[in-house]
Parts: sequence; C-alpha cells; structure tokens
Amino acid sequence: MFREKQGINLLTGHPVNRIDRNAKVVNGATLEGQPFEAAYDKLLIATGATPILPALPGIEHPGVMVLKTLADGRRIKEYLSSRSIKNAVIIGMGYIALEMCEALRTLGIEVTMAKPNPRFLPWLEEKLAEVVKDEITTNGARLHLGQGITEIVNNGDGLQVVCEDLTVETDMVLVATGVSPSSEIAATAGIDLGPNNAIAVDRQLRTSDPNVFAAGDCADAYHVVTDQKTWIPLALRANRAGWAVADNVCGRKVELPGVAGTAVFKVFDLQVARTGLSREEAIAAGFDPAEVVIKSRSRAHAHPGATPIHVSMVGDIKTGRLLGVQMVGKEGVAHRINAPAVALHAVMTVEQFSQTDLSYAPPFGPTWDPCLTAANQLLKKL
Amino acid sequence: MFREKQGINLLTGHPVNRIDRNAKVVNGATLEGQPFEAAYDKLLIATGATPILPALPGIEHPGVMVLKTLADGRRIKEYLSSRSIKNAVIIGMGYIALEMCEALRTLGIEVTMAKPNPRFLPWLEEKLAEVVKDEITTNGARLHLGQGITEIVNNGDGLQVVCEDLTVETDMVLVATGVSPSSEIAATAGIDLGPNNAIAVDRQLRTSDPNVFAAGDCADAYHVVTDQKTWIPLALRANRAGWAVADNVCGRKVELPGVAGTAVFKVFDLQVARTGLSREEAIAAGFDPAEVVIKSRSRAHAHPGATPIHVSMVGDIKTGRLLGVQMVGKEGVAHRINAPAVALHAVMTVEQFSQTDLSYAPPFGPTWDPCLTAANQLLKKL
Repeated sequence: MFREKQGINLLTGHPVNRIDRNAKVVNGATLEGQPFEAAYDKLLIATGATPILPALPGIEHPGVMVLKTLADGRRIKEYLSSRSIKNAVIIGMGYIALEMCEALRTLGIEVTMAKPNPRFLPWLEEKLAEVVKDEITTNGARLHLGQGITEIVNNGDGLQVVCEDLTVETDMVLVATGVSPSSEIAATAGIDLGPNNAIAVDRQLRTSDPNVFAAGDCADAYHVVTDQKTWIPLALRANRAGWAVADNVCGRKVELPGVAGTAVFKVFDLQVARTGLSREEAIAAGFDPAEVVIKSRSRAHAHPGATPIHVSMVGDIKTGRLLGVQMVGKEGVAHRINAPAVALHAVMTVEQFSQTDLSYAPPFGPTWDPCLTAANQLLKKL
Repeated sequence: MFREKQGINLLTGHPVNRIDRNAKVVNGATLEGQPFEAAYDKLLIATGATPILPALPGIEHPGVMVLKTLADGRRIKEYLSSRSIKNAVIIGMGYIALEMCEALRTLGIEVTMAKPNPRFLPWLEEKLAEVVKDEITTNGARLHLGQGITEIVNNGDGLQVVCEDLTVETDMVLVATGVSPSSEIAATAGIDLGPNNAIAVDRQLRTSDPNVFAAGDCADAYHVVTDQKTWIPLALRANRAGWAVADNVCGRKVELPGVAGTAVFKVFDLQVARTGLSREEAIAAGFDPAEVVIKSRSRAHAHPGATPIHVSMVGDIKTGRLLGVQMVGKEGVAHRINAPAVALHAVMTVEQFSQTDLSYAPPFGPTWDPCLTAANQLLKKL
C-alpha cells in the first residue's frame, strides 16, 4: 500500500527494521517481497509501548489475552460473545487490570486477580490503597496479592492459572502486567535510552541524534518536581509531544517543561487520582518528605449525598515545597487533582498552595477544599 | 445573657452601637435597660453583610421575603408549608436568586424572575450566560430582564409585582438583590473603607486602626490578578480571614495573599464557575485582554454520557498572562476551575498554563482538558 496526499507518503504494512543514521535513511522490511528505503531530513520515532508478557508457561493458550490495542479489545469482546464465559483471571492489578475487572464484573463474570507483589497499587499511599481494595472486593472480585504465577494449564475443559499457593480454574485469562517502551529500533541505531529504556529526549523532543525526534509512550520526559528524567506513558503527554515535534520539525521552536505525573482512573464507583511524587518517590529523589493523610467529604456538611474523600499530601521539610498529592473518592476527585498539579508546575510551597482561592459551593465540597485541609495539616509537619 | 468559658465573655443580645477607638472601649447598647462597655487590646469586626433591600413601595408586605440568615430560610420554609403557594416572584438573578429558583421549582412552584439590568449574569461571558439562561427557562422559570420593579401591591387575594412593562400576580416575593458589607460601625469610628464600602484591611487583616481587625463579608481583600482591593464576599475567604486574625492577634504573623475571585454555583443540572477576571473586568483593571470561548466535552469521545463544557478564557496581550477563566457545564466544572485558579495565584502566562499536566481518563474528559484546549486557542490570539 502506498498513497500520496498533501505530500505525505504512507508506507502502511512496511514494518521498519532499521534506522541507518549515517545515510539518513530508513531501511524497510519487505512486503510482498519488495524492500524499500526512505530518506529523511528529520525523523520521528513514535513507536509507542508494548505489553509486557511474562515468560509464563502456557501463556500461548487460546483464551489468554492482553489488552493494549483496539484489535486486542475487539478480540476480547469476540471471545466473550462467542462462548459462555463464567469466570476470568486477571494477572496484574494496574489501571488496565482494574478497569477490565470492572468491565468483566459488569458483564456478570466472576473475576479473580493475582500478582506477585504483596502490595496493592504500590505507588498509592497505603490507607488510600486500602479504600480502593475495599471497593474492588465489595464489587465481588477476589484479589490474591503476593502470588507468583507459575503456569497456565489448558486442561481441555478450560484453563488453570497455577500460582504459588493456589490454582484457579477459569474460562479466560487476561494478562495486564504493564507496558514497556518500544525503543529497540532506537537502541539498535545507537540512540540513547533513559529510564525504563524509554528513548531519551530533551525538552524539544530531540533524541541524542539531533535529526531524530521521539514522542509518545516510547519516549521519556522531564519530571517537573524532580527535574530528572522519568517514564510515565500517558495520553496527554504523548499527544502534546507529537504536536511539539511537528512544531520543532517545521522550525517553530517548542520546549515542553515536562510532566507532573498527573493521572486518574475510575474503578467501579471510585475515582483514584495522583499528581507529583509519593512519599517513597520523594525519598528516592533526595527530598526529606513529610506526609499527611486526611479524610474529608465531597459535599458540604449540610448538603445531602456526601461521600468521603481521602487525600494524601507530601511536602519537603527542607524547603516547604509541595511534592505530591493523591486522592480517592466517589465524586469530585478526577479534576480536584489538577489544582495541586498546577501548583507543582509553579514550584509552590505547601504554604503558598494552602492560600489558594479554590471554589466552594455546598453541592461540590466543604468550604475548605479537601486539598486545602490537607495542606493546612501538612503545614504543621513542615 | 453573660457567660464565661475559657476566658471568653459572651455578650449575646447586646448589639454594639459604637466603637470608641481612643478609649479602646466598646460602648454597648442596652438590653433590658443595662448599658455595658468592654475594654479591648485588639478588636475584630466580623459583622458580615446585609441584604440590599430596594426602596420599593410595598416591600413591607407579608409574603415579601429575603434570604440571608438561617432564620430567613426558616421563615421562608414556614411560609411555604403553612399555605398553598402556587407561584413566586424572585427579584434579582444572582447566585441566591438562581438557587432559590431551583428550590422553588423543585417544590412545583411557578417561578417568575425579574430585574432591571437587561444583561443576565453580567459578569459571565455572553455565550456562557446564554447556556445558563436556557437551563433556567428549560426548567420552567420565566425570566424578565430589563424590568425595573415599581411597586409591590397587596390586593387582598395575594401580591402583585408591578414592573415597568408588566404586572405579575403572585403568592410570594423573594428579594435577592445582593448584599452590602455591614461596615457602618467601622465607618462611624473613622476606620477606612474600601471597594463597595467594605472595611479596608491589609494582608494581615488590620484595618486603618492597627488595633482593629476585620474579617468576613464586611471586609475587603487584595485580588491576586490586579493586586488591587476588591470586595468578593464568599465563604472560604471569610473563614480563612477569621483564622488569620486569630493567629495575628495571638502573635503569629500571617499574611493572606488575596483572592482570585474563584466561585461556583449549581443551578438545576448546570455547574457555573469562574476564577479571575472577565474580559470587561480585565479592561477596567488596565489589561489588554484577548478572550476565547470554546466548547468541549465532559468525557472522552468514545465514552458514553458526555455533555458539553463551555469555557471562556482571558489573557493579557501585552504580557501573555492568564487573567481569568469561566466555565459552564453539567459535570466536571466545579473543581476544574481550580487549576486556572492556582495558575492565577502563581502569575502564570497562558503558555505556561497550557503546558500543565492535567489529569485524563475517558470518564472524566477529553485527552486535552477543556482548560488546556481553551489555553491553546487563546495562545493564537496573544
């Protein structure tokens, strides 16, 4: 397939095998026996990320699936609709695993989740993680933490997921153990890699080769709190980096300051959000963190229907700087996290953030926004 | 009534008539014929605000009510429950008027609203104001803008609200034409007043008399965008100022940077929020503003149940600075306004704000938060 439109050559179906940086040429693979190569002045690598598939005996069985691409999603839907699936095992407990847990429970399927790490959502403060765990078990999913998975067996009737201390009979297995950056082609071409082997890029999205850019889940980013490289593959950064590369290639210099690690996901009725560093990440980055965990409410005292909002906030004892916020609740969490996210970009202290003028009306929160209450409490420890 | 507890004298039922600043004495009125006076080292004036009652013939009729205090609210409830109220007229169209409109419509009461100003929510960008207006008329309330109210007549059967071009028969009238700061006692004592005759205070909440503090709806504040005095009587600032006065009186120096004018209210299914300056306020404050109005959505394209989010954003052409944001939508507005609110405190440019890492997940918004889309569009005009 080869099309031209507005000066763009589309070489669909030609997987790129190699980047030849000296000749500034992309040497292609063959499709129907036809090799190709394409010269470039500037090259963008936007290869994304690839699901991590554990080296697990039996992972190749039909009924064992991953979810990353649209095609994967369609395959899972097709599998579910073409037979009677009563139960499923999900290996992994990250965003995707939890979202799939909700989707499968909604279809009335029994869900068992297992992973080797004994800590549930290890990046989340423990009391907040407990709230999320409760939501999942309340919705009928079974969680097995600290269970190394040994093998997947096809016993004719169905599948068996064999863990260290238990064996689960199941109709299907979903492997959702994270992704890794698709950076092999860059590494082979001698381009520098960063954290998690993501392609290292500067604030203009240039790799170590000034004519080669990288953007999206394959590339790293600066973290605005640590000023160090990080790899947090999320949609906004990927999208923003793509636009920035287009600008930079076309001669309009754009620099991206970096990411704050802001993220949110929904699982059953809960919203779980974070921005910046957890306490443990703050220690690892050389800060001297203090942390508070508070419980507030989603509506004013006098307003009916309030639900708890749990907030953890981390600040630096040495400088008073705000380092990170995490939040869990049934309403008012997903966008509430953005106020501290902006504060992280502005390198605010906890005290400065505590003085910000946040919105209040009884249906939407207490007079003191839960973020402000957390900041006021954290100030006492700084 | 006179009680002592933890060293606090409560002089309930003694309205204060006068502050004698020379003698540092509060000279009280009489209750049951007993005059009193109380010496002070430091004095806090926290007299709040008073509903503005237009000089309207007939405003004294039973069935004409204001809503400011808890007692007012109880009086209205009692009035509604003690007779058959089929319809009500609300004079005014601010937050309180609109919230009462919703409350009365929920009770099945026909609501007619009238005010002299031809512009509905004059501080709100016009397209956004139109969305709010539609929500109110869709919910069955009748709006009469540009109608000066001449008189309220009690015709025996009920009340008549006589406007310039129409007369409305009604069972009750609610007057919600705003509040003014209760600053007379300070003015009489020779203490300086600020905008709207609010008591002028510095960032430590001191009035022009260093021994007299003022906090709450009676006092003014600095605006973090204009660095000028403003009077925006809202709960968070009032509450925060009270705490700050306590700290300052007790010798722990606290300075409040000021307000961003962040506010949100709910009317029927809509959330209406603002922070910072409108375009007109920006012009009045000496800025050279550019404005964009965009329409985005409350959930990602592929996620069911999305509703429109309308955002107006104002930036300064001379400096690129972010000046204000307004937002209207059925979900995801109340807390979304806090991201630009923090950006205003941090004196961010529109470009800096456009680069912030805001949360994304399909149930909660598009990949580019509506605030970021507005910022990206506004950048083209700066």
